[in-house]
Amino acid sequence: MTMTNTDIELLASGILEGDRKSLSQGITLMESSLPSHAESSELLLSQVLPPADSSLRIAVTGAPGVGKSSLIETLGIQLVEAGHKVAVLSIDPSSPRTGGSILGDKTRMVRLSAHANAFIRPSPSGHSLGGITHSTRSAMLLCEAAGYDLVLIETVGTGQSDYAVAQIVDVILLLVHSHAGDELQGIKRGILEMADLIAVTKSDGIMQEKAAHAAKTYRRALAMSSQASKIVPVLTVSAQENMGITDLWDSIETLVHHDRSEGLFESRRQKQIEHAIVDMAKTLLLNEFNHSACVTESIEELTSQVLSTKCSVHHAARSLAHQFIHHHSNPHHLS
Amino acid sequence: MTMTNTDIELLASGILEGDRKSLSQGITLMESSLPSHAESSELLLSQVLPPADSSLRIAVTGAPGVGKSSLIETLGIQLVEAGHKVAVLSIDPSSPRTGGSILGDKTRMVRLSAHANAFIRPSPSGHSLGGITHSTRSAMLLCEAAGYDLVLIETVGTGQSDYAVAQIVDVILLLVHSHAGDELQGIKRGILEMADLIAVTKSDGIMQEKAAHAAKTYRRALAMSSQASKIVPVLTVSAQENMGITDLWDSIETLVHHDRSEGLFESRRQKQIEHAIVDMAKTLLLNEFNHSACVTESIEELTSQVLSTKCSVHHAARSLAHQFIHHHSNPHHLS
Repeated sequence: MTMTNTDIELLASGILEGDRKSLSQGITLMESSLPSHAESSELLLSQVLPPADSSLRIAVTGAPGVGKSSLIETLGIQLVEAGHKVAVLSIDPSSPRTGGSILGDKTRMVRLSAHANAFIRPSPSGHSLGGITHSTRSAMLLCEAAGYDLVLIETVGTGQSDYAVAQIVDVILLLVHSHAGDELQGIKRGILEMADLIAVTKSDGIMQEKAAHAAKTYRRALAMSSQASKIVPVLTVSAQENMGITDLWDSIETLVHHDRSEGLFESRRQKQIEHAIVDMAKTLLLNEFNHSACVTESIEELTSQVLSTKCSVHHAARSLAHQFIHHHSNPHHLS
Repeated sequence: MTMTNTDIELLASGILEGDRKSLSQGITLMESSLPSHAESSELLLSQVLPPADSSLRIAVTGAPGVGKSSLIETLGIQLVEAGHKVAVLSIDPSSPRTGGSILGDKTRMVRLSAHANAFIRPSPSGHSLGGITHSTRSAMLLCEAAGYDLVLIETVGTGQSDYAVAQIVDVILLLVHSHAGDELQGIKRGILEMADLIAVTKSDGIMQEKAAHAAKTYRRALAMSSQASKIVPVLTVSAQENMGITDLWDSIETLVHHDRSEGLFESRRQKQIEHAIVDMAKTLLLNEFNHSACVTESIEELTSQVLSTKCSVHHAARSLAHQFIHHHSNPHHLS
C-alpha cells in the first residue's frame, strides 16, 4: 500500500476518534519494514501523538503456559467494566503471526476481545527484536492516541524480549507457576530482579496451598537477593476463579502512586525515551553508513592498501569513518 | 603497562626476529581492551606488517571432545618436521584463560608446544566475540611477522565463533565424531556448509569401520545439500595412530592450490579485509557517538521535546545523528 498524505490524515483522525479498524491499520503501518512506509509511520505518529502520561503501560511476563492470556483476560474484563479502555499488545519474537499463535490468542481472550473498550493485537512477525521494541512502542502510542488508558504488553518471559519490554513500560508483572522450586531455576535471575510485582497463578482448588507456599518461597528468595531494598509484592491469583485479581490491581495502583509521588515514574519514562532516541540515532547512523556511496567508493582502494600492507585494518577503518562523516555533514544526506 | 615508542620498536624487532617471548607480549597487547593500548597495538602492527599471502590460515573446528587438540598436535608435529613454522591460536569465548582450559591445552599439546618451530596460544578471555575476532586477526598477523607460515585457529564448533573465524581464515576444517547420526543433529547446518574439508576423528582400532561409515554418511548428506556444487572432501583420521594425517594435509594443499589458481584465495582475503574495515569503521563510529560531548549535551533537550510530544523519537534521533555528524566533521575528533 502506498499512502498519500490524505490517507494518513484520514487514518490519524480515525485513530483519534477511537476507530478500531483505523488503529489496526495504523499498527500494521508501524510494523512495516518497508522503507517507503517509514515516512508514513513518522507522519502518522506526529499527527496523533498523545499527551504525555496519558496511560499506564504494564508488561505481563512469564514462562509459556503460566497463564498470561487467562490473567490478562480476567484482569482486562474487570478493568473495562470499571470504565477503562484496555489495549493488549504481544511481543514474542518466536511466534509467527499465522497459525497457532493468533488463533490461540483469539480463543483464549474471547470475552475480552469481544468488548467494545478492549483492543487485542497479536505479535508482529518477521522482525528483529530491536524492530519489535520500536514498533511496539509506536503501536502503544497509537493505542494511547485512540484513548486506551491501559496498555498491557504480553511477553514470553525467557530473556531478551523481557529486557526489551522493560524499555517501554512503567510496571513489570511477572507471573510464575506454583511449583516454585523448579520455577526459580527456570526463570532467569535478571527477570526476577526486573519484576515490580510477582503473581503466582492458578491458585485455585487443591492448588491454593501450593501457590501460597510458592509465594512464600519467592518472598524469601527476593529478601535474600541483591535487590532486597526494593519491595516486590508477591501475590497469589486465580484467573479462572477470579480470585486475587482485585488485590493485584490494587497493588499495581499503589505501586504506581508511590512511583509518581517520588518522581520515579517520570524519571523512568525520561530514561526510556533517552535510550530510545540514542538507540535509533545509532541505527540511523549505521543504516546511512551501509548505504553510503562514499563508503562504497572508498572501500576498494582501502582494502588494496591493507592487502599490500601499506596500512592496517584499523587505520583504513578510521579513514573510512572520517570520509563518511565528512561526506555526510550535508544535512540532506541523513534521512 | 605503559609502552613508549622505544618499547614498541624493541617488541617489533623481537617479533620480526621470531623471538617467542616478544610474540607473546605482542599478542597480549593486541588482546588488551585498555584504550591506552589501542594506539600501541596499532603502532606495533604497522611496524611488523608481514607481506600479503605470507601464510596459510586454517580453522580447525568441531564439537568439544571431538579431538581438535590431538589432531592439531599430530598434524602440527608433522608440519614442523617438514620445515614449517606452526602457530596455534584458540578462539573460545566461553573458556576462561585460567584453570582447566590452559592446563588442558598445555597437557594435550605437550609435544608440539615443546618444539622450537611451534607457538601455541590459548584463548583470550574477557572479550566480546567481535573483540576476539579482531584480536585473533591481529595475533595472526604478529605470528606471520614472526615467520610462522601456518596458522591454525582452533574454535569450538558450536556457532557464533565459527562464523567469526570464517572471516579470518583461508580453509575451514571440520572435525566430526564417528557416530554420525547423532552428530548430524548436533552440528549446525550452517557450520557443515561452511566447511572446506571434513575429517572423521578417532578412526582407529575397532572404531575404524564406524568412522568409514560415518564418512560415507557425511558424503551423502553433503551431496544432497544446497552446497552440492562445492566438493568437500570427507576423510577419516586417527591422531593417536597418526593415520590419515598425511592424506588430510595433501587434501588441504590440493584445495589451496585450486583456490589460488582460480583466484578464489585472493578474492576471499580481499572480501575478508573489506568486511573487517567496514566492521571496525562502524565500531569506531558508535564508540565516538557513545562518547560524544555533543550527544550528551543534546539528549536532555531532545528527550523533553519527545516527552512534551513536540516531536517523535524518530525525529529526535535524526536530529541527534545530524548533530553528531556535523560536530565531528572536524577530522581531529575521530580517533
